[in-house]
Amino acid sequence: MDSPEGELIGRLVDAREFQRLRRIRQLGLAHFAYQAAEHSRFAHSLGAFHLATRTLAKLGAKYAIADADSTAIRVAALLHDIGHGPFSHVIEPILGFHHEDFTIQAVLSDETEVGNILRTYSAELPAMVADIIRGTFRPMALAQLVSSQLDVDRMDYLLRDSLMTGVKYGIFDLEWIIKSLEINDEDDQLYVSAPGVYAVEDYLQARYYMFRQVYFHRTLRSAEAILQSLLRRALMLHREARPVWNAVDTAFDKVLTGEKLSLPEHLSLDDVDVLFHIKRWQSSSDPILSDLAQRFVNRRLFKAYDLDMPEDERADFVERVREIADEAGFDPDFYIIEDKGGDVAHNFYVKDRVTPKNLIYVEDGFSRPQIREISEVSAAVRGLQTGYRIHRICFPAELKQRVAELYHS
Amino acid sequence: MDSPEGELIGRLVDAREFQRLRRIRQLGLAHFAYQAAEHSRFAHSLGAFHLATRTLAKLGAKYAIADADSTAIRVAALLHDIGHGPFSHVIEPILGFHHEDFTIQAVLSDETEVGNILRTYSAELPAMVADIIRGTFRPMALAQLVSSQLDVDRMDYLLRDSLMTGVKYGIFDLEWIIKSLEINDEDDQLYVSAPGVYAVEDYLQARYYMFRQVYFHRTLRSAEAILQSLLRRALMLHREARPVWNAVDTAFDKVLTGEKLSLPEHLSLDDVDVLFHIKRWQSSSDPILSDLAQRFVNRRLFKAYDLDMPEDERADFVERVREIADEAGFDPDFYIIEDKGGDVAHNFYVKDRVTPKNLIYVEDGFSRPQIREISEVSAAVRGLQTGYRIHRICFPAELKQRVAELYHS
Amino acid sequence: MDSPEGELIGRLVDAREFQRLRRIRQLGLAHFAYQAAEHSRFAHSLGAFHLATRTLAKLGAKYAIADADSTAIRVAALLHDIGHGPFSHVIEPILGFHHEDFTIQAVLSDETEVGNILRTYSAELPAMVADIIRGTFRPMALAQLVSSQLDVDRMDYLLRDSLMTGVKYGIFDLEWIIKSLEINDEDDQLYVSAPGVYAVEDYLQARYYMFRQVYFHRTLRSAEAILQSLLRRALMLHREARPVWNAVDTAFDKVLTGEKLSLPEHLSLDDVDVLFHIKRWQSSSDPILSDLAQRFVNRRLFKAYDLDMPEDERADFVERVREIADEAGFDPDFYIIEDKGGDVAHNFYVKDRVTPKNLIYVEDGFSRPQIREISEVSAAVRGLQTGYRIHRICFPAELKQRVAELYHS
Amino acid sequence: MDSPEGELIGRLVDAREFQRLRRIRQLGLAHFAYQAAEHSRFAHSLGAFHLATRTLAKLGAKYAIADADSTAIRVAALLHDIGHGPFSHVIEPILGFHHEDFTIQAVLSDETEVGNILRTYSAELPAMVADIIRGTFRPMALAQLVSSQLDVDRMDYLLRDSLMTGVKYGIFDLEWIIKSLEINDEDDQLYVSAPGVYAVEDYLQARYYMFRQVYFHRTLRSAEAILQSLLRRALMLHREARPVWNAVDTAFDKVLTGEKLSLPEHLSLDDVDVLFHIKRWQSSSDPILSDLAQRFVNRRLFKAYDLDMPEDERADFVERVREIADEAGFDPDFYIIEDKGGDVAHNFYVKDRVTPKNLIYVEDGFSRPQIREISEVSAAVRGLQTGYRIHRICFPAELKQRVAELYHS
Repeated sequence: MDSPEGELIGRLVDAREFQRLRRIRQLGLAHFAYQAAEHSRFAHSLGAFHLATRTLAKLGAKYAIADADSTAIRVAALLHDIGHGPFSHVIEPILGFHHEDFTIQAVLSDETEVGNILRTYSAELPAMVADIIRGTFRPMALAQLVSSQLDVDRMDYLLRDSLMTGVKYGIFDLEWIIKSLEINDEDDQLYVSAPGVYAVEDYLQARYYMFRQVYFHRTLRSAEAILQSLLRRALMLHREARPVWNAVDTAFDKVLTGEKLSLPEHLSLDDVDVLFHIKRWQSSSDPILSDLAQRFVNRRLFKAYDLDMPEDERADFVERVREIADEAGFDPDFYIIEDKGGDVAHNFYVKDRVTPKNLIYVEDGFSRPQIREISEVSAAVRGLQTGYRIHRICFPAELKQRVAELYHS
Repeated sequence: MDSPEGELIGRLVDAREFQRLRRIRQLGLAHFAYQAAEHSRFAHSLGAFHLATRTLAKLGAKYAIADADSTAIRVAALLHDIGHGPFSHVIEPILGFHHEDFTIQAVLSDETEVGNILRTYSAELPAMVADIIRGTFRPMALAQLVSSQLDVDRMDYLLRDSLMTGVKYGIFDLEWIIKSLEINDEDDQLYVSAPGVYAVEDYLQARYYMFRQVYFHRTLRSAEAILQSLLRRALMLHREARPVWNAVDTAFDKVLTGEKLSLPEHLSLDDVDVLFHIKRWQSSSDPILSDLAQRFVNRRLFKAYDLDMPEDERADFVERVREIADEAGFDPDFYIIEDKGGDVAHNFYVKDRVTPKNLIYVEDGFSRPQIREISEVSAAVRGLQTGYRIHRICFPAELKQRVAELYHS
Repeated sequence: MDSPEGELIGRLVDAREFQRLRRIRQLGLAHFAYQAAEHSRFAHSLGAFHLATRTLAKLGAKYAIADADSTAIRVAALLHDIGHGPFSHVIEPILGFHHEDFTIQAVLSDETEVGNILRTYSAELPAMVADIIRGTFRPMALAQLVSSQLDVDRMDYLLRDSLMTGVKYGIFDLEWIIKSLEINDEDDQLYVSAPGVYAVEDYLQARYYMFRQVYFHRTLRSAEAILQSLLRRALMLHREARPVWNAVDTAFDKVLTGEKLSLPEHLSLDDVDVLFHIKRWQSSSDPILSDLAQRFVNRRLFKAYDLDMPEDERADFVERVREIADEAGFDPDFYIIEDKGGDVAHNFYVKDRVTPKNLIYVEDGFSRPQIREISEVSAAVRGLQTGYRIHRICFPAELKQRVAELYHS
Repeated sequence: MDSPEGELIGRLVDAREFQRLRRIRQLGLAHFAYQAAEHSRFAHSLGAFHLATRTLAKLGAKYAIADADSTAIRVAALLHDIGHGPFSHVIEPILGFHHEDFTIQAVLSDETEVGNILRTYSAELPAMVADIIRGTFRPMALAQLVSSQLDVDRMDYLLRDSLMTGVKYGIFDLEWIIKSLEINDEDDQLYVSAPGVYAVEDYLQARYYMFRQVYFHRTLRSAEAILQSLLRRALMLHREARPVWNAVDTAFDKVLTGEKLSLPEHLSLDDVDVLFHIKRWQSSSDPILSDLAQRFVNRRLFKAYDLDMPEDERADFVERVREIADEAGFDPDFYIIEDKGGDVAHNFYVKDRVTPKNLIYVEDGFSRPQIREISEVSAAVRGLQTGYRIHRICFPAELKQRVAELYHS
């Protein structure tokens, strides 16, 4: 850590924007389902950085990699999540932004500590890191280490989340994959040599099951539904100029008023801001906001049922559940939530939805080896192509009996 | 979990006071030293409960244990930390209370969900649980499972903290200890049978090293020093009626004004309240508060030096460091902190400081076995009796060079 | 272990036939590929017994299970491998027997310690255990714990072999499967409830990859090819009355002469007998036997190539490799081995090759659950149905260059 | 592995003398006590080599290490156990040799594959490796990596044996020790820097407990007692020209006749030879040999009692047990074994018994650090200095009741 590059990494870790990641949980609300999954994006980012360092060392022993490129890749792995806000998956759709944009801005900005540290190190570094995150960096094979369907981000989070949740499905043979990584110089493309193919199959299955078992977990999604509802309610109250507690002159205040956040404001937000406001809202004069806040704080979550009925019956079923809620005095706009999960291309490896640069290539055949896209080679991966969609309805536990009767009728 | 006892446990876990433990980190600021040590008291409490269940099952196979006693022990293990506030080790000395008192109050109260749940289950249960935590319960041998030098609390947290920090010293052979637990009916005392003696030695060593390596870690203690300083500063500002941000009508507001908290107020506090206020204080008009808050949030911690000089030179050394601080414009009352750690009786197993009921007894000898206190039997445990005290001085990194010169001169 | 059943188990473990399993490696020659996979059938048998005990405890908490049935199931799990000989997969085809027959005989016999121990415990027990192993026991649902596509044998060996080889693919979520096991009383059939379906999918994938990566490993199969060749050679020499070292009056002597072994003779054989003879054969006057024995002892294994050419070219290719061997002075009958692995029905879960009683049934659907065979429910399992066959040619490393030229031409 | 040094290592691993280590169990008979401890010296030797490589990499980043020295250290770590015979701890005292001599001979010889491989690589290499094993190599600091109280041999076997036995005591923080290794250039001595001191304390405790709990385990020592007795009996029969089965013209034949083995003969022996002969001896015409062999094969081990009585009563007690044996028809010379374990200097770290070059040095003090021997610094290590001696008597289980009466009287 005494080399200039080592010092650079040390300074980036100490930067205020990176330290903020300690206050943003990696899995948002997953700890409501898996009690010990309380880890932060800080630990994950260090893990991704560590894997970038290891994969570069493996590739560097065989292929010529420029020092500046290697530095940029390692930095990009470290900083790839720096633009994330608290509870991103819930908040981004409400506020309409994408954390990757903030990551890129943070890297390029002269208002951020990380931006200044990078620029001081080398004038080109900020743009290189931004290109890696954008996916426009060349050599592409290196950028794929940080941003592709088989990148250090996914490899770290699957193993980490698997460990922290105790769900064994996420375990795959990381060592074997690293050992098998190669660069196809002709097409400037990463690929996995033949002995690593099973390990990649297993990795894709690990990813598939982690989505089904953890990231789409009923309890987690139900907690996110309440969080989303109560934020929508608070925004509505604010918009309608009805009283809603907020800490004035803070970034979160602007979130509530719907103003666009500046980069430093965005980079000051963390889980603490959201949770403190929700704690305060428990005593709101608005009964819906106060009720939802109390449910959230005390983990009185919604029930969630799979809409595994024929598709044409769903809308009708949802409508009738809304009526049940209404009759029982629950405003269906805030108490009945449809949860349609499964942005397939993002979550699973589905060949047809992925841009060519992100596809996973492997070496196939023993006597006359070729480099081919993995689903062409592996029946097991083809078996995962159909993906997995959830479509659920979430509602207060108080309605359980009436909804269950409707459901099983 | 369908038995009445199972339902009781389920309700207690769902109670608001227990859910609050999700928002209090088990190790306070240890994650500043060991990045992944971000786990909460919630997970630890479930772990202690699990160990209580297992040890009772082991003992119950051989000794007669009344159902009501067994239930009380399991409940006490589950709830033993329910009175903890955020960052207890730092805040309790400032505010002058002890979390065990709040645990006992919470169990006995009719203002808490847990109190009501217990009372509904059995009129005697609240008092029994309180007695276990107080150490006055009989049979004593059972209470020792929850509150003694070899209790499920310590056994869970050593293994859990060891896992989460990655520090291997905390590992001991839990299974062997459980297998070796016996009850000495004559003296109403737990003891460990001969085959488990090494495991107990190893457990005591694990505890010793975890204190040295984790709980007394320089970085952790330095972060606590800053936290303590900034809270003292905020209290002072408040006392002197100078402006300091606070969320009015909250329990934390009362903390700042020095008012005594009611039980429900105490039980509403968590890490979020403290952290949110500190985030706000970063922009305080008081330069000391704002500086300390920024250091804390962005992990610009104090340096810490061991005062391993002859005892009579210490006071003089500290005084001279305070002068260096003063000259450099740092108010020594808030920037120079002496850290004297090591409440030996609490942290280590030291025979002479422990009440007889809490001593660890083991079976000794092969041909004519006797039950004896472990340090009489084990040279290794006697070797740990001297304990370990830290005495450090913490100061801003800006002073490092000048203090170092003084230190090494 | 003080109950009569506990004593029974203790005696069976101490029986000479069970202790023999310490001298038979679980994975035969796998340690040539995975150096640490040196574990015995003894450890595996205890593991399977442990899982039988745990699954019975889980089922017994909900379903009525007769004590005698439970005992028989546990005993069958413990003894299921007792008839195995050394290097079974290689030796059984040569000598023409199946270890399950010996297991059943050992259980029923009055010449074995285990047989006598069982009979002393209960007159019915030997026949019950034999029925479980034969697959004719009723209730079938219980027998399936020991002998089906999802039995404690497979669950133990996948996890154990995965641990010992370091191959992560074999890891699946055992706890979740155990928690999800249920009995369909109507059809007397085990099934897995809905929350366990992913765990079963993962288990089947684990099995699939362990076969591909471990049990069919090139090095392991190549070592087996040499072992098979040298045993065939020794048998031939014996048949032709040419000198070949053997320890007279031992069971292995009879193996060499092709005589049928009595049960006690079979149950006296272990890895030691085979290895000692091969060590001696290193100095045989027959150059082929001595050469093969030296290769085996010193791990000078054959090379193995996948015959991944069009099927109609294979026979021709093999013929030409035999000619190459012949020209180089290697008798092709002993130095060129075709390895066609993959008895699909045994190794993988393929619906169409499994008898109905061994199929894996799971609960499917949330609103209107049904019990269905798993490949009907799971696309991932259907993806594994095509299985995996190996077809390789093994030859001495000395021929590598010439065979490689032929192969890549 | 494509560098000349990599090729050298590959050839050494493939050498016949190294492959033989696959057939010698690391822990001899420990699997009779810890069923899964079936691992070989082969795996351990690779582990020690791996640690040598890692520690050299750590030191090489800071200190100048000649390539030839580094190669010699790695080779010495790989080959350090190559002279071990089967069941060394039992057989060496009977036959009167020390395995280290054979290791040195094997390295220097031109009759061995390893000797020739080393000589071909470099004319100096064999002598350098031999010097390292003898302890006369310079720089001494490097040789200490392979042969000292804190060497890669011990570090590997403690962790490996701990893993394989399931005994948690053997776990220590390897990573921290490696990270803390430094070279004191002045005294040509390895030492451990201040942050690693606790890790070394923990390592020494791990060693202490592994001896008490595993290497001196009652069952293991009792099995060794039988093995020793039956070998003595076989030697006696041979000496007296009474019939005893042996495979003529083998190295083990010479062991029985008491002839001195040549180096290649010694290096052909392994567990298989010993076990095969014992299996044969089960049907010996000598009733003592046949009985002891059967006990060994079927794990009918001796009972063992600690002679924890006053020292002056021991001889008398042993004499009376011998009389009990005699009366019951057991020849006391072969059925009553005194087991005095605990060659303290070898097993534990005891400052006064260790040559200065093997002592463990650590950095002590924060303000004015010094390099000191660890027991001067650590009370915990001083606590282990008294060591631990076993003194037991082993006898047939048939005598248990009578000996127990005597023992407890």
